[in-house]
Amino acid sequence: MQALGRQILVEFYDCDREVLNNEALIREILIEGARRSRATVITDTFHSFSPHGVSGVVVIAESHVAIHTWPEHGYAAVDIFTCGETIDPWVIQKYLEERFRARNVSSMELKRGLFPERVPHKPVLEEASV
Amino acid sequence: MQALGRQILVEFYDCDREVLNNEALIREILIEGARRSRATVITDTFHSFSPHGVSGVVVIAESHVAIHTWPEHGYAAVDIFTCGETIDPWVIQKYLEERFRARNVSSMELKRGLFPERVPHKPVLEEASV
Repeated sequence: MQALGRQILVEFYDCDREVLNNEALIREILIEGARRSRATVITDTFHSFSPHGVSGVVVIAESHVAIHTWPEHGYAAVDIFTCGETIDPWVIQKYLEERFRARNVSSMELKRGLFPERVPHKPVLEEASV
Repeated sequence: MQALGRQILVEFYDCDREVLNNEALIREILIEGARRSRATVITDTFHSFSPHGVSGVVVIAESHVAIHTWPEHGYAAVDIFTCGETIDPWVIQKYLEERFRARNVSSMELKRGLFPERVPHKPVLEEASV
């Protein structure tokens, strides 16, 4: 079975609460993590909630990195969705773990879009199929 | 155990390939799906790939809906991440299934941010904790 995408779901517990409530810093961390994995950043959008908490997404050419933080619980949910084999999503996970000072981390890797046959990473247009 | 977030991972197979390659239409479908679930749309970002494929995220006050499509395989990966109990993420899943004309759908629901004690959906700021 071949997968079109791979996704890492990360639960960051016991993080630095000030970091998790700092929208500008979280944005910088996610973009820097994406760059370190050699992802191509296309755009990003971040939002702070009242009284606290930050949500954001960095859209990369290879898919996306999304985050939702609950600073009051020292918790952040992060999804790293990638396609192709040019970038290593675990580079992002490790970088975030370090910058969030997470003392308790649980990660799961999933394969998305499973097909029985070999599929190309950068698929070629099939005539009359699209 | 109480969860801060819930996430539905959806694999849409055997979809309408023209729909999956239409960025404007996909954006409209995701935003309409979010609205039908009573989510509050904050912002969105969509991107078309060459030669085909669309990625996009709709950021909602209750978290996000993300999509990556491979029209040439009739496949779309969708993540619906929500927090709180005011919206039903399955409304979005059902609406997308209908609009994508997906003939083969596999969905999984995950709980994110598990804590042993009862946590409020809209947490109250704890003094000196943030």
